[in-house]
Amino acid sequence: MGKYIYGIDLGGTTVKMGLFDGEGNIITKWEIVTRKEDNGAHILPDIAASIKDKNNEENISAEDITGIGIGVPGPVTEDGRVLKCANLGWGIFSVADELSRLTGVAKVKAGNDANVAALGEQWRGGGKGFNSIVMVTLGTGVGGGVIHNGNIVTGCNGAAGEIGHLKVNPHETNTCGCGGMGCLEQYSSATAIMRHARELVNNTEEDSYLRQFETEKITGKEIFDAYKAGDKLASQVVERFAQFLGLGLSHVAAVVDTEAFVIGGGVSKNGQVVIDVIRGEYEKNVMFALKGKEFRLAELGNDAGIYGAVRMVM
Amino acid sequence: MGKYIYGIDLGGTTVKMGLFDGEGNIITKWEIVTRKEDNGAHILPDIAASIKDKNNEENISAEDITGIGIGVPGPVTEDGRVLKCANLGWGIFSVADELSRLTGVAKVKAGNDANVAALGEQWRGGGKGFNSIVMVTLGTGVGGGVIHNGNIVTGCNGAAGEIGHLKVNPHETNTCGCGGMGCLEQYSSATAIMRHARELVNNTEEDSYLRQFETEKITGKEIFDAYKAGDKLASQVVERFAQFLGLGLSHVAAVVDTEAFVIGGGVSKNGQVVIDVIRGEYEKNVMFALKGKEFRLAELGNDAGIYGAVRMVM
Repeated sequence: MGKYIYGIDLGGTTVKMGLFDGEGNIITKWEIVTRKEDNGAHILPDIAASIKDKNNEENISAEDITGIGIGVPGPVTEDGRVLKCANLGWGIFSVADELSRLTGVAKVKAGNDANVAALGEQWRGGGKGFNSIVMVTLGTGVGGGVIHNGNIVTGCNGAAGEIGHLKVNPHETNTCGCGGMGCLEQYSSATAIMRHARELVNNTEEDSYLRQFETEKITGKEIFDAYKAGDKLASQVVERFAQFLGLGLSHVAAVVDTEAFVIGGGVSKNGQVVIDVIRGEYEKNVMFALKGKEFRLAELGNDAGIYGAVRMVM
Repeated sequence: MGKYIYGIDLGGTTVKMGLFDGEGNIITKWEIVTRKEDNGAHILPDIAASIKDKNNEENISAEDITGIGIGVPGPVTEDGRVLKCANLGWGIFSVADELSRLTGVAKVKAGNDANVAALGEQWRGGGKGFNSIVMVTLGTGVGGGVIHNGNIVTGCNGAAGEIGHLKVNPHETNTCGCGGMGCLEQYSSATAIMRHARELVNNTEEDSYLRQFETEKITGKEIFDAYKAGDKLASQVVERFAQFLGLGLSHVAAVVDTEAFVIGGGVSKNGQVVIDVIRGEYEKNVMFALKGKEFRLAELGNDAGIYGAVRMVM
């Protein structure tokens, strides 16, 4: 009798879904739209309907399903309760219980999307071979997930791994999206480095490779390309990015002494140079007993969430 | 048949030892001297001999012993290997295996002393009732231990919970004992606040309650007493202490989202005022999702280590 697991990564725009076999090998993946109207009331029923369609298509009966894992964009407690997902319109409820009710599948595991993606990378991606990793996602914001001995560290309010909001600069006067000031996310997200580059292009006279682009079109790729070519303005951007991130990760290491950092998100697509600059600043800041950690690029891209969701069930 | 567990807290001067029943209730405790000569070669044999004496005294046979737990002053891996204890003269070896061999007790668990004390406080002290705590010890240095779901977070090199070496001040030019600069320990240990008070007394003219003492006799007690009485010089000392500690604990929370902080060590003997000033600065620095953590005073004092050592075995 074949056993199947569904892995679901619920995002603000689309829901990524995957059907896996009992050993965690992917069989097929697809996406549906995230319907946010009516305070997100359609989201879980849409997911349940899509699972039923897939069951019919693949001739899978309810008893053949070992479980369903789902990552959601907000804090989730260890027992699967969502503590508000602002951008889905959700309040507090048990997403695990509700999805179980809608699908008839008893075992449903829910986790925060960043934590679930971290678990996916530890299991089958850049963190393969390590028991304990910290995943850092450098995208619109800076996300994080802490995996300890193969398990997600959830935290008592589902807010463990919120490394984007480490206060790395107590002198900052601009406000972060979270309401705080001096958060890591203000310096080391993709958004932050693009903003920093634009500011330097607009407010300085310094000659730069970046001046050939419209300022709105300067992304991480242009910045890291210019940095590799020795461009001074790009170097300022990359150095600030790395200084705060290296400092922040030194804090993370002092708390959990992880085996490896796995760097993902849009900025990580610039490859080894990103690892090199972060590691350089990490080593400058961290205490001797924590030096020499492994730094790896994430490997699963947008699939990390569905892999991690499946791993939660296994 | 009665079951017994030995809990041992190995320090640089004395070894604290406790005999507990199988439910973790203390029967008796005593101390022996830590003989550091010959690179610490006598330490474990002395402990084993003291256990045998106690067995004879209490009429306990080897089969009645469930296990032995021991906390040692240095990094210890999850499998009980010590990675150098500089102040005992020890190199790298398995303290768990060696103590097992010397005593004939199969189950020996070893951990870092700060982590083991944290486990003791979580189990029977200030952290009772919480599954996950972070213990902060404010003494000669600043020690830490992270307990997650009732277990010690050891870290891959036994260096998790090294919160005394969080780099909270990147602008520092004085060097910490660890070789780094700007470590939390440089501002928030008992040593640091005494040094800061002496510096202010010696280098300023400001009127202060603290001037009635010889500078060498100004300890945490005098500083906190003066602070409570509104003394301005003492306020500067306490504010710097709390600012860096509150910032450092905000980092800790962002990584593991613990339920409670338990504050121990000499400085904590000044009571609720210590909690109040730390919590105030913590709340200023931490992101919204992590506000409102519990802060508790440690309760077990010097016995935390033997309790935690026993808990590792249970």
